[in-house]
Amino acid sequence: MENKKITKVIMDCDPGHDDAIALLLASRADNIQILGVTTVQGNSEIKYTARNARRVLDYAGVTDVEVYMGCPKPMMKEHYRLTGVAIHGEDGLGGPYIPDPITPVKEKHAVNFIIDTLRASDEKITLVPTGPLTNIATAFIMAPDIKEKVERIIIMGGVVYTDGNVNSSNEFNLFLDPEAAKIVFNSGCDLYVNTLDVTMKATFEKEDVERLRAQEDKVSVIVAELMDFFGNSHEELFNFFTIPLHDPVCVAMLIDDSLVEYEHVWADISTKDELTAGEIVADIWHLTDKAPNCHISRKIDREKFVNMICDHMKKPYKSKNA
Amino acid sequence: MENKKITKVIMDCDPGHDDAIALLLASRADNIQILGVTTVQGNSEIKYTARNARRVLDYAGVTDVEVYMGCPKPMMKEHYRLTGVAIHGEDGLGGPYIPDPITPVKEKHAVNFIIDTLRASDEKITLVPTGPLTNIATAFIMAPDIKEKVERIIIMGGVVYTDGNVNSSNEFNLFLDPEAAKIVFNSGCDLYVNTLDVTMKATFEKEDVERLRAQEDKVSVIVAELMDFFGNSHEELFNFFTIPLHDPVCVAMLIDDSLVEYEHVWADISTKDELTAGEIVADIWHLTDKAPNCHISRKIDREKFVNMICDHMKKPYKSKNA
Amino acid sequence: MENKKITKVIMDCDPGHDDAIALLLASRADNIQILGVTTVQGNSEIKYTARNARRVLDYAGVTDVEVYMGCPKPMMKEHYRLTGVAIHGEDGLGGPYIPDPITPVKEKHAVNFIIDTLRASDEKITLVPTGPLTNIATAFIMAPDIKEKVERIIIMGGVVYTDGNVNSSNEFNLFLDPEAAKIVFNSGCDLYVNTLDVTMKATFEKEDVERLRAQEDKVSVIVAELMDFFGNSHEELFNFFTIPLHDPVCVAMLIDDSLVEYEHVWADISTKDELTAGEIVADIWHLTDKAPNCHISRKIDREKFVNMICDHMKKPYKSKNA
Amino acid sequence: MENKKITKVIMDCDPGHDDAIALLLASRADNIQILGVTTVQGNSEIKYTARNARRVLDYAGVTDVEVYMGCPKPMMKEHYRLTGVAIHGEDGLGGPYIPDPITPVKEKHAVNFIIDTLRASDEKITLVPTGPLTNIATAFIMAPDIKEKVERIIIMGGVVYTDGNVNSSNEFNLFLDPEAAKIVFNSGCDLYVNTLDVTMKATFEKEDVERLRAQEDKVSVIVAELMDFFGNSHEELFNFFTIPLHDPVCVAMLIDDSLVEYEHVWADISTKDELTAGEIVADIWHLTDKAPNCHISRKIDREKFVNMICDHMKKPYKSKNA
Repeated sequence: MENKKITKVIMDCDPGHDDAIALLLASRADNIQILGVTTVQGNSEIKYTARNARRVLDYAGVTDVEVYMGCPKPMMKEHYRLTGVAIHGEDGLGGPYIPDPITPVKEKHAVNFIIDTLRASDEKITLVPTGPLTNIATAFIMAPDIKEKVERIIIMGGVVYTDGNVNSSNEFNLFLDPEAAKIVFNSGCDLYVNTLDVTMKATFEKEDVERLRAQEDKVSVIVAELMDFFGNSHEELFNFFTIPLHDPVCVAMLIDDSLVEYEHVWADISTKDELTAGEIVADIWHLTDKAPNCHISRKIDREKFVNMICDHMKKPYKSKNA
Repeated sequence: MENKKITKVIMDCDPGHDDAIALLLASRADNIQILGVTTVQGNSEIKYTARNARRVLDYAGVTDVEVYMGCPKPMMKEHYRLTGVAIHGEDGLGGPYIPDPITPVKEKHAVNFIIDTLRASDEKITLVPTGPLTNIATAFIMAPDIKEKVERIIIMGGVVYTDGNVNSSNEFNLFLDPEAAKIVFNSGCDLYVNTLDVTMKATFEKEDVERLRAQEDKVSVIVAELMDFFGNSHEELFNFFTIPLHDPVCVAMLIDDSLVEYEHVWADISTKDELTAGEIVADIWHLTDKAPNCHISRKIDREKFVNMICDHMKKPYKSKNA
Repeated sequence: MENKKITKVIMDCDPGHDDAIALLLASRADNIQILGVTTVQGNSEIKYTARNARRVLDYAGVTDVEVYMGCPKPMMKEHYRLTGVAIHGEDGLGGPYIPDPITPVKEKHAVNFIIDTLRASDEKITLVPTGPLTNIATAFIMAPDIKEKVERIIIMGGVVYTDGNVNSSNEFNLFLDPEAAKIVFNSGCDLYVNTLDVTMKATFEKEDVERLRAQEDKVSVIVAELMDFFGNSHEELFNFFTIPLHDPVCVAMLIDDSLVEYEHVWADISTKDELTAGEIVADIWHLTDKAPNCHISRKIDREKFVNMICDHMKKPYKSKNA
Repeated sequence: MENKKITKVIMDCDPGHDDAIALLLASRADNIQILGVTTVQGNSEIKYTARNARRVLDYAGVTDVEVYMGCPKPMMKEHYRLTGVAIHGEDGLGGPYIPDPITPVKEKHAVNFIIDTLRASDEKITLVPTGPLTNIATAFIMAPDIKEKVERIIIMGGVVYTDGNVNSSNEFNLFLDPEAAKIVFNSGCDLYVNTLDVTMKATFEKEDVERLRAQEDKVSVIVAELMDFFGNSHEELFNFFTIPLHDPVCVAMLIDDSLVEYEHVWADISTKDELTAGEIVADIWHLTDKAPNCHISRKIDREKFVNMICDHMKKPYKSKNA
């Protein structure tokens, strides 16, 4: 059922089509207050992802939420461009025309924004990373004390019960920065991990896109156009048309906590073998005596998800930062 | 469709309920000649698995096929007992009473049997490992020249598209000896890998077991009883009743090559990270330029499989070693 | 011969007895301008190392050089206390009484100080890390652009030609944060690595300590007392008395560039194997085609080094930050 | 002092100049009975090393000791040819003319010879591996029971206190087959490891070679000529002339157990990181609570060693296998 209590979030993302939709969804949610948006390399280069976040927010009237640029490279690995560009286009947000941003990206580094915001807050804050975990891991290295201020971390990344989108074992976000993922998975924070197991089922079908487009408002239409591009990219790279809205699942589960079912298990991230680095390994059968440390997504109510997206996109933006 | 040409095989196994059924199936197949049975630790200790192979063969009248005992431990890892005993019982073949073997296990080491048999053969031979790959890997270390005499290796092991039975990433057989698995996957031999993706669907339902039991012949009845035990063990360990006939898939696909569908991909085995060691990582999206080196199982016709098992179990044994 | 040109440095350290002496040496050197002192966990906990840096600088009149506290933990590894406490005492600076600091440690995070200082500088700056490399690696993750502003990195850490002080392969500083070390060694910056090969020969003998003590000035005397404690700790832990002035070698080679001989080789840091993590592996025989990326210390003129320390300790402090 | 009791040994080698001299030394030692010589790839390919062992034994009249060919490749790694060929020549025994062997190499595989000999023996047997440890590790995989029949394993390999001959961390023999080394180091057998720390000091100087040559007997002269080639190869590859008799140290310490001093420590072999694979890591400071599992060479009496070699080379061969 719908959450009434306001959840304060920092959105940490690499827009990216599905990141953009996640930002829009969060901005329209009655129970979510975005304290700031931090960006990271991933779906595209850092210079594009910060600009894309700003472009999308400005386009949708969310000018009072600030964007902070973060780490331009993974912690230790080389940046891996291949499928990012193939899926999201050269600048990370291929498809419809979205004007240049008017609001400037802030000077402050994303990592410092995360640290300072958590430290300054009286309440706990929810982190919503939908790209590689470089910014959050780096914040935890510099200031491990902030972990106590973290309510939950709602991750989009990894795959546990099915197959990956990089190879059979690896999902793109965690694959891009395995060391960062390991740091976050071992942080002791309360983790909700929206894996491909569920996000590959959080799809818009072609008729859902048309429903969205038919809403005719500015935001619904641009989102429909982003989905067109995203679906076509998948068809070219993976040989089947699909519009998996990975990142919006992280926001949707905050709006309605009955949307996604999770399994509470122990899991860790492989970093030592080049073959598997970035992979989640989970004790799904509880055969070890390791205490559960994260909630892995298991099921989603797709219809409810599609309705939620459509309904929220046509809402006007109401600032909660006043 | 059914293969007519006789396939000469060495069965390398760790019986084990499903190994035992695989042996029986091979012995009843018109187009399979078993040159010998080699055993390895795995589902149980080496002293039990050799004895179990011999017991089952003697019970089913297959006294002219010899059994050779192989490596008692994984190459580098400690032996992992937990789920083996839980699934197969203390001696690896819990359930029905099967008398002690009459035919002795041969003195020759399994590894030497494999090497000598391949070297002496004019024709290529198919290896059918349904346990950890220690024997075959060790034979390849001692005598890499024998790889040229290998027709195909039909492996039961690993998981690629779904989740494992040790943890989310690992299947029991390959998990038990990761280094051996890596050696075999990098051998250059033609590999057919029957993974949990398919073998977890190669199930007998309770009514299939009753059909088998109703055949009333000695072998069908004992196999039904083995299945009873196997299904109950799964229920206790994993909390759901299932009778996945993993190992018989390796034999069944030799009997009818339309039974299982495979995907030709590049794959390798993780050995460097304790978290993932023994896992298959496969380039299922062909995103790298690595040439395919194995056929990973994708689909099985369960009905055909069940029929094949039932039909073969009631056949009398006809020796092909004359 | 003595360098005349002023070298601008950031001292990144974990005092620690030898770090303290390195700071004092740098403060007395005519050709070194300390832009700031950043601290890290290592020889002791972060709360102690920052305080110790400040205590030592205040004691020696260096109140115009600021101290910044850095990362309290290694990037990925648990903090390893054993030999740090054994060698340096519970608070990292056992032995003589040094009063509490008067000057406060700055609020700004060491990592931000490093980034901001390098970005703001017209000239290139030399980094002198004498503890684990966590701060510098984290700065490189957040802001890789600053690498272009780095003149050289003068590291105390590792061992190449002889044996380690943690085990046969590992030196304490790099062992404490292997991932950070790997990031710095792969940074492309010009590296001078003062390894145990040389720093274990950069010793004060008991008569050298007496010579220092006999200088009677405040700084010389306290340094002699620090050396007493340091030598005794070594005797207890390793069963032989020695006063190896590891960290001061990094400063001494900046004062007189003929003091230490280096070999230009390719080297990297092991991180994948728990047994070796943090170890330098160097292509000392040039058997690969990898281009040299660091200068590994090979030889030191001990007598010159001892004279330099004694001579500088009795010098008054002259600020270069005016 | 000289050992009187007869030590029964299996020499496992890859001749190679120093292996050849080790074989000759063992054949001339009053207290050593060679039960057989097994060969492995290493300094040269397997086809050459078996032939070289046979050539050298036949040349020196040791026709009653059999040679068995072993594993042609490392367990998991690609064969590394570079420095082997550079040091020992294309066929592994460059330099003087030594006629083709007359005695044939035995058909039986070296691994089987090791297993069968140990199993059949009433007394414990000493293994003397002076090449990569592939044969012994494979024997331990096939037949772990034989470990109980092993008196000691006298290894030439690794480096602990100084620098390697492949890179700063790695010695050639262990580097060639890291997994085999790890298996042997973890075997529980009593290990004496003659590392480069000592074998690089077990040198013949040019005048020692002349002394040997001046003995004028057939064996002394050919050994002097082997040393000429070996010294020149080192000069070309490493830029300094030296004749380090690595492998003979393993035999010499059996002849006179006061020759080499050892330190009893815990040690293991790195296999997980490509950078360090094959390296010994030893707890030389006893900072962990791991029980010592091997004796690492520390010191050698070079003069005594040179005298021993010279004295033994001129001795006639007396069979102990009658």
